[in-house]
Amino acid sequence: MKLKLILSVFLLTANQLYAQDDSLTIRKIYDEALVNGKSYENLRYLCKNIGPRLSGSDNAQKAVVWSKKLMESYGFDKVYLQEVMVPHWIRGAKEIAFIIDGKNRIPVPIAALGMSVATPKEGLTANIIEVQSIKEVEELGESKIKGKIVFFNRPFDQKLVNTGHAYGGAGDQRFIGPSTAAKYGAVGVIVRSLSGNLDDYPHTGATLYTKDGKNIPAAAISTNAANQLSSMLRMRKLPLVRFYFKQDCQMLADVLSYNVIGELTGTEHPGKFITVGGHLDSWDLAEGAHDDGTGVLQSAEVLRIFKALNYKPKNSVRAVFFMNEENGHNGGTKYAELAVQNKEEHIAAIETDAGGFTPRGFNFDGVSNDFMQKVNGKWKALLAPYDVDRLTVGESGTDIEPMKEKLPGVILIGFKPDSQRYFDIHHAANDVFENVNKRELELGGASMAALVYLIDQHGF
Amino acid sequence: MKLKLILSVFLLTANQLYAQDDSLTIRKIYDEALVNGKSYENLRYLCKNIGPRLSGSDNAQKAVVWSKKLMESYGFDKVYLQEVMVPHWIRGAKEIAFIIDGKNRIPVPIAALGMSVATPKEGLTANIIEVQSIKEVEELGESKIKGKIVFFNRPFDQKLVNTGHAYGGAGDQRFIGPSTAAKYGAVGVIVRSLSGNLDDYPHTGATLYTKDGKNIPAAAISTNAANQLSSMLRMRKLPLVRFYFKQDCQMLADVLSYNVIGELTGTEHPGKFITVGGHLDSWDLAEGAHDDGTGVLQSAEVLRIFKALNYKPKNSVRAVFFMNEENGHNGGTKYAELAVQNKEEHIAAIETDAGGFTPRGFNFDGVSNDFMQKVNGKWKALLAPYDVDRLTVGESGTDIEPMKEKLPGVILIGFKPDSQRYFDIHHAANDVFENVNKRELELGGASMAALVYLIDQHGF
Repeated sequence: MKLKLILSVFLLTANQLYAQDDSLTIRKIYDEALVNGKSYENLRYLCKNIGPRLSGSDNAQKAVVWSKKLMESYGFDKVYLQEVMVPHWIRGAKEIAFIIDGKNRIPVPIAALGMSVATPKEGLTANIIEVQSIKEVEELGESKIKGKIVFFNRPFDQKLVNTGHAYGGAGDQRFIGPSTAAKYGAVGVIVRSLSGNLDDYPHTGATLYTKDGKNIPAAAISTNAANQLSSMLRMRKLPLVRFYFKQDCQMLADVLSYNVIGELTGTEHPGKFITVGGHLDSWDLAEGAHDDGTGVLQSAEVLRIFKALNYKPKNSVRAVFFMNEENGHNGGTKYAELAVQNKEEHIAAIETDAGGFTPRGFNFDGVSNDFMQKVNGKWKALLAPYDVDRLTVGESGTDIEPMKEKLPGVILIGFKPDSQRYFDIHHAANDVFENVNKRELELGGASMAALVYLIDQHGF
Repeated sequence: MKLKLILSVFLLTANQLYAQDDSLTIRKIYDEALVNGKSYENLRYLCKNIGPRLSGSDNAQKAVVWSKKLMESYGFDKVYLQEVMVPHWIRGAKEIAFIIDGKNRIPVPIAALGMSVATPKEGLTANIIEVQSIKEVEELGESKIKGKIVFFNRPFDQKLVNTGHAYGGAGDQRFIGPSTAAKYGAVGVIVRSLSGNLDDYPHTGATLYTKDGKNIPAAAISTNAANQLSSMLRMRKLPLVRFYFKQDCQMLADVLSYNVIGELTGTEHPGKFITVGGHLDSWDLAEGAHDDGTGVLQSAEVLRIFKALNYKPKNSVRAVFFMNEENGHNGGTKYAELAVQNKEEHIAAIETDAGGFTPRGFNFDGVSNDFMQKVNGKWKALLAPYDVDRLTVGESGTDIEPMKEKLPGVILIGFKPDSQRYFDIHHAANDVFENVNKRELELGGASMAALVYLIDQHGF
């Protein structure tokens, strides 16, 4: 009885010491990030000196070269490129669009959806029909859709606290709206921008054509203009209100590009990997600040912080700047393929692709409730002082998703920052450096470093 | 045994139903705020059509009149003014300041601290001495301080996750720096702006003169300029580097002003009160958007949401727009005094004066750990879906603090939004409407309404 008591006191103490060690290391990680964090100034460079960097563009290549140099300058154990072929879509001349209201032409801001085809050179004029959903197009059928421009106008559901869920709920209009409308003979598609905010920015983003379907031109319209168009359609009815738009985007030949990878090699298990990453490519309309300059630079920061603290991970830790998340996901697919080919054992992969806002927690992709309970039991209290202790089942990220199928056993994790402002700037011209807050950004890098540290030390 | 079992099943079910009712009502509160919330458009009016509204100013009076009309337009049961005398300090002409570096004069952005006296008409030139703390001034003593301008330059501690704590840690320089320096014969004081961000905005804020001390002119300098000045002092030493500043602020006679109060009268306990409030006055340099336009309009929103949902509180619920938080706290003091005089029983008072950012939780002022555990046990799970479940012991707010002493039994609560961006704009020219996000703001009003609802239904 006495021995048991002594033992349990000893175990308790050992446990406390162990937790105390972790808590001290995590404190040091945050101190380093908050006092010496480099994400913000690196992001300034990426945004202001390179700028938009859509897959296949010269800027994307510049970003690859700069990212590699940056990680080399930090003295990571390995820094290298991973070849990946990517699509090369270009926007061409700025789009033009009008609501035609009898004799009036009211200019409205649009942006071609990524991967869209051009309109005829002289533009496209047609009657316009407003719909709220894919299903509505299917129900209206060819008799109502043929020859028209289909206007998808279902707004974000404002009731959802997490704006990512609102994006998910409205996204099908952009993803498969154009291909669905084409099936019923539409000549073009206009999609309400995927944003919950009312403003004048069109928000681009990829649309998915089907292989056997007709590719019709498709563009996003600003939320303010979508409301205006909708209200005119309600007041005047067809055919008085028609729509005109002109865009000359095109798809060029695929281009050789790269994932950029930095690595700290594990001292005990060099063949086991923890990956942190975001995507280096960004839409062409802005600087790709929150989407996803913040993510790649937070990922490099995880390794930089470890080096600064002289923390030598037991397992290999990689920062991966994935290429081509926005219109193809080829970088993520390639990374998973090569991991299989090289027989790498992946413990975990964390993606940060939800903006550089104040961290709140992490999503664990497809794990059991038991698993989640265990993780919370071990780590919630350690992360609570930094307000990043929401550890829940949820989505991870597009770039790491291909690992799920190819690398069984890997735990996929999505970094979860505050979501309120993300879709105000997502894929639009205002996704610029000025809309990123230094402390919010650096806290994100620290949060990822803390989680990677815990996984490296203790596994799941 | 069987009866006990049946009873416990019954109790469990009753308990679940009760929690379910609460959870449904809270969902409705958030839906109303996110879909029909009025805080944002009201804030636009207050910022753009009225603007800065320091106590005693014409604008403060305009804000009083508008606020009363606004709450009347919502049809609250009572809307009225509470008379309060307030100080009337004015900045006068824009300040001028130079670092004098030999023959060069380098202009730097400063702003007189609130309540400061003017410099002589021609301005003030003197040697400048940099210090890090009040204690350092005391140690240097008269021999080193006399005749000089004292430059307080201790920055925010970036390691603190909550920026409010960093503000608390640096604040004494502004609050009592000038009066302390005066004791040792300083002729003026320059204080590093109380912000963790590096930029060109001077951040004003009240300084506290002592009644028997000499009032010397004091101003805030931008953080960038503070760094520049400090670096020049390190490189060149005195007396090559001197400082010049000129300000013509003055204190006028006290002015009659008002707290603005809206009330929904309790259906069961009209004499028991739950108060929600922020402050209507704001510094003169900007629009007082986050400080504290957001707070007063979120407070009115609590009552508006209740009316919209036809929720009739058991206890009386008041929205109080306190006057004179920034330089006197007279509104808060008066409110507590009148509550005592009118023999009101106050259950709780909630202040929102930390910006209109994404809500994270509430601070409960000076309560026991047992109390906090009980509150968490009852309400944490109900607030978690809205990410506003950090219920901890902490500071409440300046306006409600006088109630602590005067109204024993009242629970004082501070609304706690995300803190990362607050001191970037606090008391500076960039505290404008454009820096407020609609969803973040409306979520705050909903969070306060949810807590008030729970207190009204269940007490503590």
